[in-house]
Amino acid sequence: MADRAALEDLVRVQGERVRGLKQQKASAEQIEEEVAKLLKLKAQLGPDEGKPKFVLKTPKGTRDYSPRQMAVREKVFDVIISCFKRHGAEVIDTPVFELKETLTGKYGEDSKLIYDLKDQGGELLSLRYDLTVPFARYLAMNKLTNIKRYHIAKVYRRDNPAMTRGRYREFYQCDFDIAGQFDPMLPDAECLKIMCEILSSLQIGDFLVKVNDRRILDGMFAICGVPDSKFRTICSSVDKLDKVSWEEVKNEMVGEKGLAPEVADRIGDYVQQHGGVSLVEQLLQDPKLSQNKQALEGLGDLKLLFEYLTLFGIADKISFDLSLARGLDYYTGVIYEAVLLQPPARAGEEPLGVGSVAAGGRYDGLVGMFDPKGRKVPCVGLSIGVERIFSIVEQRLEAELLYKKNPKLLNQLQYCEETGIPLVAIIGEQELKDGVIKLRSVASREEVDVRREDLVEEIKRRTSQPLCIC
Amino acid sequence: MADRAALEDLVRVQGERVRGLKQQKASAEQIEEEVAKLLKLKAQLGPDEGKPKFVLKTPKGTRDYSPRQMAVREKVFDVIISCFKRHGAEVIDTPVFELKETLTGKYGEDSKLIYDLKDQGGELLSLRYDLTVPFARYLAMNKLTNIKRYHIAKVYRRDNPAMTRGRYREFYQCDFDIAGQFDPMLPDAECLKIMCEILSSLQIGDFLVKVNDRRILDGMFAICGVPDSKFRTICSSVDKLDKVSWEEVKNEMVGEKGLAPEVADRIGDYVQQHGGVSLVEQLLQDPKLSQNKQALEGLGDLKLLFEYLTLFGIADKISFDLSLARGLDYYTGVIYEAVLLQPPARAGEEPLGVGSVAAGGRYDGLVGMFDPKGRKVPCVGLSIGVERIFSIVEQRLEAELLYKKNPKLLNQLQYCEETGIPLVAIIGEQELKDGVIKLRSVASREEVDVRREDLVEEIKRRTSQPLCIC
Repeated sequence: MADRAALEDLVRVQGERVRGLKQQKASAEQIEEEVAKLLKLKAQLGPDEGKPKFVLKTPKGTRDYSPRQMAVREKVFDVIISCFKRHGAEVIDTPVFELKETLTGKYGEDSKLIYDLKDQGGELLSLRYDLTVPFARYLAMNKLTNIKRYHIAKVYRRDNPAMTRGRYREFYQCDFDIAGQFDPMLPDAECLKIMCEILSSLQIGDFLVKVNDRRILDGMFAICGVPDSKFRTICSSVDKLDKVSWEEVKNEMVGEKGLAPEVADRIGDYVQQHGGVSLVEQLLQDPKLSQNKQALEGLGDLKLLFEYLTLFGIADKISFDLSLARGLDYYTGVIYEAVLLQPPARAGEEPLGVGSVAAGGRYDGLVGMFDPKGRKVPCVGLSIGVERIFSIVEQRLEAELLYKKNPKLLNQLQYCEETGIPLVAIIGEQELKDGVIKLRSVASREEVDVRREDLVEEIKRRTSQPLCIC
Repeated sequence: MADRAALEDLVRVQGERVRGLKQQKASAEQIEEEVAKLLKLKAQLGPDEGKPKFVLKTPKGTRDYSPRQMAVREKVFDVIISCFKRHGAEVIDTPVFELKETLTGKYGEDSKLIYDLKDQGGELLSLRYDLTVPFARYLAMNKLTNIKRYHIAKVYRRDNPAMTRGRYREFYQCDFDIAGQFDPMLPDAECLKIMCEILSSLQIGDFLVKVNDRRILDGMFAICGVPDSKFRTICSSVDKLDKVSWEEVKNEMVGEKGLAPEVADRIGDYVQQHGGVSLVEQLLQDPKLSQNKQALEGLGDLKLLFEYLTLFGIADKISFDLSLARGLDYYTGVIYEAVLLQPPARAGEEPLGVGSVAAGGRYDGLVGMFDPKGRKVPCVGLSIGVERIFSIVEQRLEAELLYKKNPKLLNQLQYCEETGIPLVAIIGEQELKDGVIKLRSVASREEVDVRREDLVEEIKRRTSQPLCIC
């Protein structure tokens, strides 16, 4: 144990280090790391009577929303809600916690991430892990067999947070689901249409929606020779292909999960394929896969789905991707996941996926798990993961609103050119006297005087940005 | 242990009883009681393999919101939020849970009602109990000394639910608070003004706002001879005066809490008084109370407060009530609570308070409890308890929208007269042919034909109901 005065010095130095990092706007992870060191030093130092003993922070993986962040959140929600309503959904809400047993057996390996409440006498409770299981419970409890609903609320996962990349322990999901028996693939196609509409209106960059079907995956595992008991765990390995190489996934399958190397190789031949409807047709001709009943059903439905997607004008955004597996237990048919694309670093390269922002699929068995008589209600839905979207919009706003140190006009105009701000409103002495505002188009450098009372209309006319926070 | 077949019969009979009560729309408490009996019988019966073992319900004291209930909720929130914004507040949000130690020592006897999360490794967490303590933590954490903010979110209390009267374990609070050093009583008066504006716009009936001051209560306890150590517990007893008689409160003070009977009687002389600014002036002349420094400060501030309330035109809604005490530990000055009034049963009787729908007060020490250097930030705020308001609006809507069994026109008009529906739109064959709608004023029985396209405007013109859900 170090001498107290020396330790106090260390605490002081480390405290300054943390303050410095905050001023330099270092990454949240870096700051968190240095704060952790500071707390360790303080713990060594022991309690000091003059100060409160507790740490002034929000729980790990959570954050407050400042008024400015709330403005971003409300604007993003407005875009999402107006789309959900346009597609005819009603809104519901459910409690933040459920009976523990309501969540049991729904999430597979991820169940370990569920937050439980302390047993203080009475019922055993858990915080909701998603909005899908509460929705299924709601349907069964109210004996509903037919509803389009949306639900926007926070969910809770004891995951490893990575807050700069928008991964939190408390985070919003924006869910839209269709329950009921309808003609095949029509509700599924509407869900994909909604996803594309929302991601386009949010203007957060180019995106791609990967599509697959649980029945195709299961059929593929069967014909490759995966034992039934290993379907789920091999599915989890496949799901990692968006983050690591095929070699690593194969090593996990063979080394950790005991799959024969030739079985893994057969899987590898399939899951490295992706494409459009032509890949669906090619696999329908695949001598082995086409013999598997489940796979055949899945492929037939995907073919029909692509017809609807073409009619909806979004087929170019969709990629049939055999490596898409999704983690949750309850999916039974079509599954999908939208990723944002980073522009290619060099011409000719493929754009790089930088993370999932929306996902969903069909779960025809979940409501039946709650119904006392096991009556099934077919369901399909989607979930928008808005935290990443908030980060992107917040970063964009920071660029647009930051004050420059040097307020000279030329510097400001240059800043607008660099950051792509389209219009500048200039109010000098002459403009004040004349009751006008000079409006400058940054691209053309053309300037016109606009009367004050017409300014808002003129700016609205010239910009067609649906997401604009002032 | 009863024989299984007999027990199964009992379960069946009790099950039918519960279904019957639900059909008769019995009270939620009665149904809950009978469901509890049913569950006990089922537990005696033991597991049955054919059915799921879990109970299909939401946790005790919580509820889902159906689309119809969400419509009520959104309309009520719209009224509240537009008032908060009109008064210049920004919005923030905080996590649903806080570090357990953040909530420690803030709620007095009520702390036992806090929901804790299970220790699953990592930090010890609790669900938020109100929005005031998280707000104070937010101010201290961000070193803010000056903000007007509102926050609308769910809070959690392991209380005894009474759901028909709008008392839940998960419920919304709508909070507005002003932090910062300002001229005396101005922020306090604005909070009362906001309460009155919101309760008036919601049109949920007549209301009264009781006002008192913690300093007057403490001063009164001191001059009556209450030992310092008993201030808080005697304050809790006084707080019960809105529910039970003075005799019962006195019995509790003397019998349970060991107060001398003559001390209790002295308190009784004070706390049974209520009135307007004249009572403030009378107490300022009270030979004993006016000698107590704290009480004098409180009375002086209340006098100033009444001047502002008169300027704001709401003095007639306010009652200085010496029995108002409020449960929470953190109040330091003015406190207030709004109650809805039931119209008097007989002329000459006083209207009866039927329950608190909003409350708040000044808490100048709370932020200092979080600040490492104990720096204080004066705060005053209010909280609207919307669950009771939801119940009232929902009941009103049920009356307005229920279909009558007999659809004859005369019956429907009579129904409108009875329930106070002001306008009837009549579409018969002739109206269909003419493309018009007959609009009838229920009160005057006058009818006019209105063109379809003008109907909405005409109805809007004739009604000035801000809360109208269609």
